Amino acid sequence: MDKLLFTPGPLTTSITVKEAMLHDFGSRDDLFIQLIKDIREALLGLGNVSKESGYDAVIMQGSGTFGVESVISSAIPPTGHLLVIINGAYGERIAKIASIHKRPFTSLVFSEDEIPDLEKTEQLLMSGNFSHMVIVHCETTTGILNPIESFGALSKKYGVQFIVDSMSAFGAVPVDLSVCNIDFLISSSNKCIEGVPGFSFILAKTESLNSCKNQADTLVLDLFAQWQGLETDGQFRFTPPIHSLLAFNQAIIELKNEGGVEGRAIRYHANFSTLKEGMSKLGFLEYLAEDKQGYIINTYHYPENAAFDFKIFYQKLNQRGYVIYPGKLSKASCFRIGNIGRIFTEDITNLLNAIKEVKLEMGF
Amino acid sequence: MDKLLFTPGPLTTSITVKEAMLHDFGSRDDLFIQLIKDIREALLGLGNVSKESGYDAVIMQGSGTFGVESVISSAIPPTGHLLVIINGAYGERIAKIASIHKRPFTSLVFSEDEIPDLEKTEQLLMSGNFSHMVIVHCETTTGILNPIESFGALSKKYGVQFIVDSMSAFGAVPVDLSVCNIDFLISSSNKCIEGVPGFSFILAKTESLNSCKNQADTLVLDLFAQWQGLETDGQFRFTPPIHSLLAFNQAIIELKNEGGVEGRAIRYHANFSTLKEGMSKLGFLEYLAEDKQGYIINTYHYPENAAFDFKIFYQKLNQRGYVIYPGKLSKASCFRIGNIGRIFTEDITNLLNAIKEVKLEMGF
Repeated sequence: MDKLLFTPGPLTTSITVKEAMLHDFGSRDDLFIQLIKDIREALLGLGNVSKESGYDAVIMQGSGTFGVESVISSAIPPTGHLLVIINGAYGERIAKIASIHKRPFTSLVFSEDEIPDLEKTEQLLMSGNFSHMVIVHCETTTGILNPIESFGALSKKYGVQFIVDSMSAFGAVPVDLSVCNIDFLISSSNKCIEGVPGFSFILAKTESLNSCKNQADTLVLDLFAQWQGLETDGQFRFTPPIHSLLAFNQAIIELKNEGGVEGRAIRYHANFSTLKEGMSKLGFLEYLAEDKQGYIINTYHYPENAAFDFKIFYQKLNQRGYVIYPGKLSKASCFRIGNIGRIFTEDITNLLNAIKEVKLEMGF
Repeated sequence: MDKLLFTPGPLTTSITVKEAMLHDFGSRDDLFIQLIKDIREALLGLGNVSKESGYDAVIMQGSGTFGVESVISSAIPPTGHLLVIINGAYGERIAKIASIHKRPFTSLVFSEDEIPDLEKTEQLLMSGNFSHMVIVHCETTTGILNPIESFGALSKKYGVQFIVDSMSAFGAVPVDLSVCNIDFLISSSNKCIEGVPGFSFILAKTESLNSCKNQADTLVLDLFAQWQGLETDGQFRFTPPIHSLLAFNQAIIELKNEGGVEGRAIRYHANFSTLKEGMSKLGFLEYLAEDKQGYIINTYHYPENAAFDFKIFYQKLNQRGYVIYPGKLSKASCFRIGNIGRIFTEDITNLLNAIKEVKLEMGF
């Protein structure tokens, strides 16, 4: 029996998703090419858009960060100017990518427990000559859910392209790319769609994809070239992660069977509520204020008790088959528990019982 | 029953390799961290080197080309000068990568059916101020096996770092990194080690890895940073392709059980000989001269017969469960048949029978 993963990923996946990997396919096989096409179409559907409505989906190998770097280095021309809205480590990472690729950028940094301020953002958009704005949807650093629709409206008002890193939200937090005015949305195979890791994907306005032509400064992360490859012969430019794609195809079927994004949101919400209530009863304090919490991942302060040691706490839960996650905050000492992946309220209840046991054992 | 893949990859893998993917692991799990460590150590062993002898192994997500781009963009400083030895499409690709990353380079181009000339290379090394030289080990374009030991000796003589793209050879063509004076060797999970696709890996001299510090111009393909991540806490910097790594670990066990690189070479040699003899009997002409053929993949001219149409030929074999591969040559019209992956001489014999059948059916 594998340990259950209460993390932001890699996540627990269903056995049927894993079993889909028990096959080999040639990358030029008609069935496989159809599968890629189906996946791209399904992804657009999850974002409530379609090819016909002027959007397309591109699959990019590697983890989510490969997808983010592909977009930043392909979409922003050296003459552009990117506004990076930051309230956590993943926003910081985007600024780092822009810096490495020498794309002009300005960081607007907010506290990790704060929703980025719209007024401050608007002031900056008014004063600066920005071409693009990027924000993280669910900042996995804390689990905070940023209001992408409001930021999308701002980007529309000021005529800048809008990029959303929706790594840990897409598939479980309903989003309409058109309503949110999103030019590029990035997510990955191993988050809320519950596939296995291996690739990221990008949903984008077709015209925004077209504007990426000849702008990339790498071969493999060239978003436009990758898109063109998929469009011309339906194939990846380079050997695709066949088995991850087979698993993802099955994961999409299971997402649909669960009632799509809305159905999955219900389960994750239930996980979140069960966890929240249980942890509160056990005396753990939440890092985020109530109104700022998303339902993807919860962040808890270390208990102020000399008997608490995160490493031991983590190990003892691990030995019981439950994997939680360390914090990633710049200031506060916290740990995180994820509500996503193939886990249900009964799993959360079992985890809570294990935490209670460990708490007693450690004496905090 | 899956089709058998007679291609340069994705390849047919064993069912046990695929079954190793029926598990989920947290990326910080001690067992998983140990597995990454074991894989890196085993890879060094396959190259006849070790950490103690001054080498290390780095795993890089994405296909083989991600690994090649990682090395080229990390190892060659903007002040360096790369000599690219080319006798096929994969050599050309390396020159393209150098060009995209604005690394000064000179291409020395030979015909696709020729072994690169050592004298011409030496003349260039004497006259130019080169810092690095790169060559493809087995040029998958034709299957030609380039003499990396001789080129390694030249690189030593002229004090340039030596990079080998051993994508489709490593694991089945014996190589000693030290004897060949290799600074960086790149290969991938889904070639002769017979894992599933998902990542590439780099074996390198520790001191050459150290010289990559602060030289990369991307975040995700930064070879030094990736190495440092693996060295400090044993983890990937970004969500690893867990399942591909689980499969690869099993693939390494099966490689050892087959007698290591030498054992695998014997099976692939047998596949090669069976194919060569059978195709000759069927009247197909080889593209490469006898003394230039490797045993990884064979290239055949299209029969000069109006009844031959590659697309139909390919489809008819495909319908019978055998997947072959189109050509990638700049001039000649050829197709390719791979001898690598979980295939045996009896599979080659079955393929030959199918080709015979299709030949009769098509009337060429």
